[in-house]
Amino acid sequence: MPRIVRFHRTGDADVLQLDEIAMPEAAAGEVVVAVRAFGLNRAEVMFRRGEYPQYQPEFPSALGYEAAGTVLAVGEGVNAFAPGDRVATIPSFKMGRYWSYGEVARVPEHAVAPLPAHLSFEEGAAIWMPFMTCYGALIEYGRLAAGEHLVVRAASSSVGLAAIQMAKRLGARTIAVTRTAAKRAWIEAAGADHLIASEEEDMIARILDITGGRGAEMIMDPVAGPELERLAQAVAYQGRLFVYGRLDARPAIFPVGLGLAKGLTMRGYSLFEIINFPEKFEAGKRHVQAGLAAGDYRPVVGATFPLADVVAAHRYMESNAQHGKIVVTV
Amino acid sequence: MPRIVRFHRTGDADVLQLDEIAMPEAAAGEVVVAVRAFGLNRAEVMFRRGEYPQYQPEFPSALGYEAAGTVLAVGEGVNAFAPGDRVATIPSFKMGRYWSYGEVARVPEHAVAPLPAHLSFEEGAAIWMPFMTCYGALIEYGRLAAGEHLVVRAASSSVGLAAIQMAKRLGARTIAVTRTAAKRAWIEAAGADHLIASEEEDMIARILDITGGRGAEMIMDPVAGPELERLAQAVAYQGRLFVYGRLDARPAIFPVGLGLAKGLTMRGYSLFEIINFPEKFEAGKRHVQAGLAAGDYRPVVGATFPLADVVAAHRYMESNAQHGKIVVTV
Repeated sequence: MPRIVRFHRTGDADVLQLDEIAMPEAAAGEVVVAVRAFGLNRAEVMFRRGEYPQYQPEFPSALGYEAAGTVLAVGEGVNAFAPGDRVATIPSFKMGRYWSYGEVARVPEHAVAPLPAHLSFEEGAAIWMPFMTCYGALIEYGRLAAGEHLVVRAASSSVGLAAIQMAKRLGARTIAVTRTAAKRAWIEAAGADHLIASEEEDMIARILDITGGRGAEMIMDPVAGPELERLAQAVAYQGRLFVYGRLDARPAIFPVGLGLAKGLTMRGYSLFEIINFPEKFEAGKRHVQAGLAAGDYRPVVGATFPLADVVAAHRYMESNAQHGKIVVTV
Repeated sequence: MPRIVRFHRTGDADVLQLDEIAMPEAAAGEVVVAVRAFGLNRAEVMFRRGEYPQYQPEFPSALGYEAAGTVLAVGEGVNAFAPGDRVATIPSFKMGRYWSYGEVARVPEHAVAPLPAHLSFEEGAAIWMPFMTCYGALIEYGRLAAGEHLVVRAASSSVGLAAIQMAKRLGARTIAVTRTAAKRAWIEAAGADHLIASEEEDMIARILDITGGRGAEMIMDPVAGPELERLAQAVAYQGRLFVYGRLDARPAIFPVGLGLAKGLTMRGYSLFEIINFPEKFEAGKRHVQAGLAAGDYRPVVGATFPLADVVAAHRYMESNAQHGKIVVTV
């Protein structure tokens, strides 16, 4: 009987446990995957805590959005995949009925993508949340154009590193912001044009300096909080500030005077804005697959943990010390 | 010698005075107009106070963006207009060198539009700031679509009434918000589908009720301040909150949690985002002219003052008691 990660109540990382379950069946339109690696996301930390804004767990609850492995079984009507295929999962389903954390995963067919032969299973578990999130922000909604400047805050995160790679493919210039220069090597490897260590330099002054005083056309920010008001000073005329996370839960100001003068857009964004629209979802899938095939998109695995250490893996995510994706190998 | 309105120092309304000047000449690309009526805007109040964010006055300074009258003289290269033509001016120039307040106005050719025969000079002075402002917000940047709900705050203002008319022409549904029901007749005449008196009813609950709980796809707000955070609760999924003024100068919060869940856009907007782009400006001009010709756009003159009472007219604007446009007749 396969083991999967579940929790029977909300709480700290140690509510996660390995439960044996009957081998899941693939119902119509579903795919069961023999998992070789799964990736961690803040969404699962929030879900485990009972703080996920989209829905609440029903106990015992499975969890997880990202995994890579080989197909074990497919349900009725699934023709695009067959047992043995190397695949990765795309976060686009409700956790609980579906999951990725475990020796087996069950997901709907639309959430399955072939895993390119040149990528490992660990890398396969680190593709879809970062690159689809960036697809929605930079391409579908943010319309980042060649020659524009993109500021990427929390640049060493998996989404940050994907944003740098995507901006490069689009011909935009990136200004990566990280707290200290400790993760410089990772950020430069992703192709950032500039790096600002925000605890060591004046972030706003540096962005204005790099952009010839004009500011950046777009900013990707997962932090929010009081810093958002200051960050708006570094946005160009008619620029857009995409907020896709809330690491700092304190209130954020919309600077009205500056907003009027600049035509400033401040916007909340989440991957659901792609998942909820099948055409945008399919376009995103095609875009990311093309980027992977061209070698422009390279998932970054920052740390791996064995399955038995899934609690430690979650704790590590909550320490905010990582870069790239935290992956659990099975 | 013609008289025009000028101020020799910034300050309250009484710094405005009537100065005799030599008859202005129309330089190349310029038009001099014999003014029959001019319209007042908050931009001029701010300019007079030295609080206009775009530029500062040089003394003595003329002022004003909107006027209607007949062409007196045209400069070299001006072929679209001839002396005697009925015209109205479009706010799209720097006040000081150009102006509309006075017995004569001088403006660049691009800022001149024919005044349709069915409109009076008073109405001609009440067209372009409101309708071009709304064109930029609702059409060029806001992309308001048929069937969507638009909330219009300060609905009895000249921009508010124009927004209601424009939304109707686009096939959208309008929810007009005004402080009390006192100006109900004007708002209904503009074609509003719903009216909320915000001092008498719960604005958020009413908007949610009218929209079947979904919220409004777009909101036009010239107030800002602390109310903005609450207003965001009444915005639909992926909706947009356009802030085009700052009647309440207190800080405004961007609600991050709600913003993430909804994909909320909060955006500062001003008419300069049309003026600064010649193609958008020409498209806006064509759109407004078509709406005027069809009878869908009807400028609303709320009060008129004689030229000698221009100080009283400015004071009346600052009282916030008006509806529609305040016009000074010459």
